[in-house]
Amino acid sequence: MSTGKFIVIEGMEGAGKSSAIAVIESILNKQGIAYINTREPGGTPLAEALRDMVKSVEHQEKLTVETELLLMYASRSQLLANKILPALAAGKWVIGDRHDLSSRAYQGGGRGFEQSIMDTISDITLKGFRPDITLYLDIDPHIGLSRAKARGNLDRIELEQMDFFIRVHNKYRELAAQDKAIITIDAAQTMVQVHQDIEKVVIEFIAATDLD
Amino acid sequence: MSTGKFIVIEGMEGAGKSSAIAVIESILNKQGIAYINTREPGGTPLAEALRDMVKSVEHQEKLTVETELLLMYASRSQLLANKILPALAAGKWVIGDRHDLSSRAYQGGGRGFEQSIMDTISDITLKGFRPDITLYLDIDPHIGLSRAKARGNLDRIELEQMDFFIRVHNKYRELAAQDKAIITIDAAQTMVQVHQDIEKVVIEFIAATDLD
Repeated sequence: MSTGKFIVIEGMEGAGKSSAIAVIESILNKQGIAYINTREPGGTPLAEALRDMVKSVEHQEKLTVETELLLMYASRSQLLANKILPALAAGKWVIGDRHDLSSRAYQGGGRGFEQSIMDTISDITLKGFRPDITLYLDIDPHIGLSRAKARGNLDRIELEQMDFFIRVHNKYRELAAQDKAIITIDAAQTMVQVHQDIEKVVIEFIAATDLD
Repeated sequence: MSTGKFIVIEGMEGAGKSSAIAVIESILNKQGIAYINTREPGGTPLAEALRDMVKSVEHQEKLTVETELLLMYASRSQLLANKILPALAAGKWVIGDRHDLSSRAYQGGGRGFEQSIMDTISDITLKGFRPDITLYLDIDPHIGLSRAKARGNLDRIELEQMDFFIRVHNKYRELAAQDKAIITIDAAQTMVQVHQDIEKVVIEFIAATDLD
């Protein structure tokens, strides 16, 4: 039995990650590939508690940007050790709603942590582990945020100012352009077009994978 | 008004940190120096929640050593920003029950994280902030642990094997020997002798401090 594959969906608020994940699930189901879903931050009891800490708008104290960074990676460490790696080892695929690229975009780009800091903390946590493929849904942050706001109930990070999201977006694009394992999807297209693009990428990825 | 001073008490389980803190409080009270107490991990609502995560023996999932490291520093970041720095700026002294040296001993020495990793994560969190003076209560881990066990209810870290505590102890001694702002107190002496040593160090430190 071969090990599973780790497919990650990335992108900003309102980029359409949830429906993209539904498209991927549908393809894996049709092909009879067993999978689990994860989300970050979160995905284990302890990681979900860390997610609440990071996203809550009702803290009695100000969350430092350093705490935000450290809790994101603590959550990722728990998820990797207790869900992602065991699933892959059991031959299951993993569909990840966000992963390391989100921290690099939001904490690296948005909060301004230097690349060397991001590399170090990522290496401590992941020890070189990487997704097999990442689909990055690229959306102008003005459009994405207006979609997210229409859904209501923004969390602590989603309540940041537009210049924060512009830095996040720029970092996403910069990193996506440097890594051939990150496929950029134009999320400003119609939903049908976006879903066709995702389907094409995922079907090609599966075709190139040894499923024995 | 001058800024306050940060006095840290360090040492292993059963070294006598609590009674050492009581001695220091008594001296500061006599001299009319206003102070607050902190403990690490913990000391703010969010940091206390992280303390519970790190110390609890009743997790539904295994805590990775990386998570332990990251949560210790997240707790420290919250405490520094929300309690230690504001108190010092207001002219109050801070008596710290553990600080960065504990992470370097337990996670660096005990868990085996490299010095360069410890330096990086400490720099991210503390940005060069350091205690004005640290009193390290040195105790053989066999003696310290037997004292701690007599108190009962060991936490997740205190339940580690003796070789872990020997590595922690060696790292404490190594780092204390390198830093003249860390004063080593022989905690194997009688309690009266230990308290006399602490009193001497603290009174000299206050005498050398401009209290205006």
